[in-house]
Amino acid sequence: MRLIFVGFGTVGRGAAECLLAARAQLAASGLAPRLVAVIDPAVGSALCADGLDEAELLRLADAGISLAEHEGAETIVGLADVLERNAADVLVELTPTNLQTGQPGLDHVRAAIEAGLHVVTTNKGPIALAYHELAAEARAAGVQLRYEGTVMSGTPVLSLCEAGLAGAGIRAIRGVLNGTCNFILTQMEQGVDYTDALVDAQQKGYAEADPSGDVDGWDAAAKALILANCVLGAELGIDDVQRTGIAGLSRADIETATAEGNTWRLVARIEAEDASYRAAVAPELVRRTDPLGALTGPRNLLAFDTESLGEVVISGPGAGRRATGHAIVADLLALHRRGAV
Amino acid sequence: MRLIFVGFGTVGRGAAECLLAARAQLAASGLAPRLVAVIDPAVGSALCADGLDEAELLRLADAGISLAEHEGAETIVGLADVLERNAADVLVELTPTNLQTGQPGLDHVRAAIEAGLHVVTTNKGPIALAYHELAAEARAAGVQLRYEGTVMSGTPVLSLCEAGLAGAGIRAIRGVLNGTCNFILTQMEQGVDYTDALVDAQQKGYAEADPSGDVDGWDAAAKALILANCVLGAELGIDDVQRTGIAGLSRADIETATAEGNTWRLVARIEAEDASYRAAVAPELVRRTDPLGALTGPRNLLAFDTESLGEVVISGPGAGRRATGHAIVADLLALHRRGAV
Repeated sequence: MRLIFVGFGTVGRGAAECLLAARAQLAASGLAPRLVAVIDPAVGSALCADGLDEAELLRLADAGISLAEHEGAETIVGLADVLERNAADVLVELTPTNLQTGQPGLDHVRAAIEAGLHVVTTNKGPIALAYHELAAEARAAGVQLRYEGTVMSGTPVLSLCEAGLAGAGIRAIRGVLNGTCNFILTQMEQGVDYTDALVDAQQKGYAEADPSGDVDGWDAAAKALILANCVLGAELGIDDVQRTGIAGLSRADIETATAEGNTWRLVARIEAEDASYRAAVAPELVRRTDPLGALTGPRNLLAFDTESLGEVVISGPGAGRRATGHAIVADLLALHRRGAV
Repeated sequence: MRLIFVGFGTVGRGAAECLLAARAQLAASGLAPRLVAVIDPAVGSALCADGLDEAELLRLADAGISLAEHEGAETIVGLADVLERNAADVLVELTPTNLQTGQPGLDHVRAAIEAGLHVVTTNKGPIALAYHELAAEARAAGVQLRYEGTVMSGTPVLSLCEAGLAGAGIRAIRGVLNGTCNFILTQMEQGVDYTDALVDAQQKGYAEADPSGDVDGWDAAAKALILANCVLGAELGIDDVQRTGIAGLSRADIETATAEGNTWRLVARIEAEDASYRAAVAPELVRRTDPLGALTGPRNLLAFDTESLGEVVISGPGAGRRATGHAIVADLLALHRRGAV
């Protein structure tokens, strides 16, 4: 299984670390992935048909040295260059999410499918904005498209829906899908002001310098959209997701909730409505004893309401270098189990 | 995919209901299971190569009429009779668990594997007592052995380990695996005496007339053993699982715990020890804010400690007709996805 990584920032390096850590376990499953190319405009690009060394790539990137310096690597211009050489089986798309255009991930995914490569991605943009189109293109090309890392990073929620919950009749999904907001709300419950909690989240690396993607609910909305379209078969666009962020919550709101045994959570909900589904992200008052109310800090959680099983709840990390990197390992193993490569 | 059901009690009927309910969803996945034989010493047996009608079987069984009365059904003597006719692809083993001998399930599973059938079971006995032997026999025969329903009924914990958590490096597992005990402990926290809580559990159908399998920890120990051997690759026997039940807990113990923000839970733990694993079931004092402490009523929960993801927690029903029946649907879909039938 020959891989191209596009993107070698935090997520790409986490994926390389996870591949290294899981090497023995992958080999036991008969899977020996070989990283033949890495493309990143910031840290450099490299191609080596015999395989690049993940540890060496990590050393170079962390030292700020161009990946082109990897021993024996050829210089490459871009993805098209690698695809033309027929050098790989799977594109691993790890560039940052853009919810307006899906770019540059969307072009990368399309080009790879067209070239007959399977695609694994952690990039929410292409999946949130163009899932049905990309899935149809992948089916027509006879390749697979996997995206575990787009919702709750490596916490295996999409494979749970695909495998164990298949046939259980999922009626509705609700959950906490943005760790930054959950961290801020948890801090506010302990008496910290919104602004101080946000700065704390930024210092801890949970929130970006521009926090609007998190606190305005865009990130959670993209994940709700992916669940609606990919798991429940809805055909919604990002503007169909009703979205309210957490910036309107005051200390007084939080204190009143606490006094009444409740807590505010930024809740994503996907529910049946008429012949389709309604998706929304908004602050909700939930009981402390509710699984969503009991979730503290930057963790994420999804509760599935099913016909056969009633409520099934899964929680885990929603972000992080290793956690998101694991999603790539899980998706590559799934490609292998399904006989793709 | 032609199925034999052995056992048509609560679990068998739940599985038939789930197959009926999921028919459209199964068909969309290209799977059209056909139930060709049902064998049950109590409610009768029937074989029909063209397929038995699940709704009719349910009607007969619930009305106390022998399944042999199903229209067009041939009378059959036992499993050997059906296996000889080469009439089926998958044995669905649904007889009650026996943790001393594994019988009669163990003989059924062995005979089916020997005859070249895939096996799906909810029976803890054969998997707890003879997993490695049965897995080796299945590998040699080129058939698959699946047993989602043996741990947390249909809550998809084993497929979670097999798929999404593969490669994540599971270091330890802890959880609440017996719903009857968790129900009793939850009731005791609300001031109910142990004896009254047990009677309530029996009246609600959670506990058997002889409750020792639950309250003495045997059921949780069998599940811990399955997790240790099947997920972590340990080679333990049932006597290797340290086991303490809940009968020794007094109202005073519970009240003291509550006053200190704690709660007693019957906790199953599997942890690395030397070159192998240690499995134990015992009452533990846990914080109310711990996922195990927050779990109330008859629900079950597992927390996986992993290298890549930290803690991943899943909770859901641990028993119930439809919930356990779903495990069969999920396992049949997995056989299909893996190209078995």
